[in-house]
Amino acid sequence: MSSHPMPPDGPFATVAILGLGAMGGSLARALSGLEARPRIVGWSPVGAERDAAANTNAVDAAPSAWREAVAGADLVVVAAPLAASCELIEALAAVTPAETTLTDVASLKVPVARVAAEVGVQDRWVGAHPMTGSEGSGFAASRSDLYQGARVWTVAHASAKPRVERVSTFWRSVGARPTLIAAEDHDRLMALASHLPQLTSNALASVLSRFDVTPEELGPGGSDMTRLAGSNSAMWRDIFDHASPELLRGLDALAGATARIADLLRRGDLEAITRLMDRTREWSQGA
Amino acid sequence: MSSHPMPPDGPFATVAILGLGAMGGSLARALSGLEARPRIVGWSPVGAERDAAANTNAVDAAPSAWREAVAGADLVVVAAPLAASCELIEALAAVTPAETTLTDVASLKVPVARVAAEVGVQDRWVGAHPMTGSEGSGFAASRSDLYQGARVWTVAHASAKPRVERVSTFWRSVGARPTLIAAEDHDRLMALASHLPQLTSNALASVLSRFDVTPEELGPGGSDMTRLAGSNSAMWRDIFDHASPELLRGLDALAGATARIADLLRRGDLEAITRLMDRTREWSQGA
Repeated sequence: MSSHPMPPDGPFATVAILGLGAMGGSLARALSGLEARPRIVGWSPVGAERDAAANTNAVDAAPSAWREAVAGADLVVVAAPLAASCELIEALAAVTPAETTLTDVASLKVPVARVAAEVGVQDRWVGAHPMTGSEGSGFAASRSDLYQGARVWTVAHASAKPRVERVSTFWRSVGARPTLIAAEDHDRLMALASHLPQLTSNALASVLSRFDVTPEELGPGGSDMTRLAGSNSAMWRDIFDHASPELLRGLDALAGATARIADLLRRGDLEAITRLMDRTREWSQGA
Repeated sequence: MSSHPMPPDGPFATVAILGLGAMGGSLARALSGLEARPRIVGWSPVGAERDAAANTNAVDAAPSAWREAVAGADLVVVAAPLAASCELIEALAAVTPAETTLTDVASLKVPVARVAAEVGVQDRWVGAHPMTGSEGSGFAASRSDLYQGARVWTVAHASAKPRVERVSTFWRSVGARPTLIAAEDHDRLMALASHLPQLTSNALASVLSRFDVTPEELGPGGSDMTRLAGSNSAMWRDIFDHASPELLRGLDALAGATARIADLLRRGDLEAITRLMDRTREWSQGA
C-alpha cells in the first residue's frame, strides 16, 4: 500500500504537516534547514498560508487537498487547534496505511488520545505537545528556531511504544527535548502550568483596560504579565471546552490569594507580604 | 562653595551615584561607555559592590563614605530603595550646595517629593523613575544597556522646572525616553501599571507552588508570568508601605475578574470567555 525505503527506526523520509500556522509553519522551517532534510509536504486550509510556506521553501510541496498531502508520508504531523486536530486524526485513520506514524501538537492530550483509540490508530499515534509558541498566529508568526530548546511532552498508548523513540528522535532533530508522560498527568499539569497563567494574563489585562491603563504605560514587567492577553481566543476556546477541575481549583486559589494580598495591604501587614514574596522568590529559584 | 566649569544647561561634568545595585550600577556602566563620559563617583553601603564597580571601570572613584562621593558633584543620583532614597535626599539637603542637582530613581515619587519639599531642596530635585529593571539585584544584575529605550518618568516642583531639561538630557544620554508627569498622577499610574502586575505574579506563583508545579514545568508563557515573582521583597516592602487606594482597587478587581472567569468556565460559557479574550487582545494591540 505504501513504500518505505527507510528502516522503521531511521528518520522519517517524508513528513506531511497539516496546518501551517505558528506551530506547523515553524516545524516546516526547522525541518527544511536540516542537513538531512526529509521531504516536507505542507497543507493548510488557507491558500495564502500554503503559498507563503511554498514561497519560503519551507515545504517541498503544498497541495490544496490534505489527502494528497499525506499520501506517501511516513509521518503526519497534525498542527491544528485541538478540535480540528481530533477531526483530522479521525479522518487520517481512514486514509493512511498502518505504517504511517501520526502525531499532533495540540496542547491537551487526553481528547486526542481518546479519538485515536476510538478510530483504532492508538498503536501508531504518538501525541506531542511542544511547550513553545507565539501569541501571534499564522505562518507569518512562524520561525525556524521555535522548537530550539523547547520541552515537548510526548504521549503514547502502550501499543504505540515501539514508535515513541522514532518520534522523539524527530523532535530532537529540530532542537526540542521530548519527555514521555501519561496523557492524564499531562493535561492535569497543563491546566496549572499553562492554562492558569493564560487566564491570569487575561484577567490582569481586563482590569488594566478597565482602569484605562494602556500597554504603552507598562514597564517590562507589566508587558511580560500581559503578553499572553494577546493570544488567539479561537485556539483557547477548544482547550477550555475541556477545562479540567485543576484549572477551576487553580483559578479559585488565585482569586483567594489575590483577595488575601489586598487584605494584607489594607491592614498594613507588610511582614506577611514580605514573607509571601520571599516564598515565591524561593520557588522561582527552585529552592 | 563648589566649582562649576560647565554652564548650567550643559551636561553634568561630575555625577555621583549613591547605590550601585541593578539601577545605579547600570547607570554607572552606561555613563562610563559614553564618548563624553562625565566623571563618575559611585558609592554603595556594601564594600563588595564598590569594589565590583571600580574593578569594571564603571566608576572613576568609589569612596567608602557617601559624603565624600557627593563632594563636587554637579548631579547626585540616589539609586536606593524608596525609604533609603528619602533618607538620602534629606541628608543631601544638608551637605550639598544649591548648585547641585539631585535626582533619584525610586519607583514612587510622591514620598520623595514630600521629603524634598520638607528639607528645602524641591527647587533642585528632579525625581526620576526609569521603567526598567531586573528581578535580580546588586551590581551583578547591572548592565550597560538597561536604560536603552526605557521610559523614564520625571517629576519636579514648579521651582525646579529650570533643571528639568538638563536632567532629561542626562537620561537621554543613556538611551532613555524621559517624560514629565505630576508626582500624584505618576504614583496612581504605577499602582496599576507596575505594582498590580508584580503582586499578580506573586499570587500566581504562590498558587503554582501550592499545587506542586515547578518553574521547570512552565512553558515560555508561564515563565513570563512568574518572572516578577523572583523580585526582591525588600525593595517592594518600601513601596507597599505607601500602598495607594488604586492598588487595592486593582487587586479587588483582579480577584473579582478571576472568580468570574472560574464561574464562566464552570458554567461552560465559552462565548463569554472568548469575548473576554478578544477584548484583552484588542487592548494589548492598542485597538
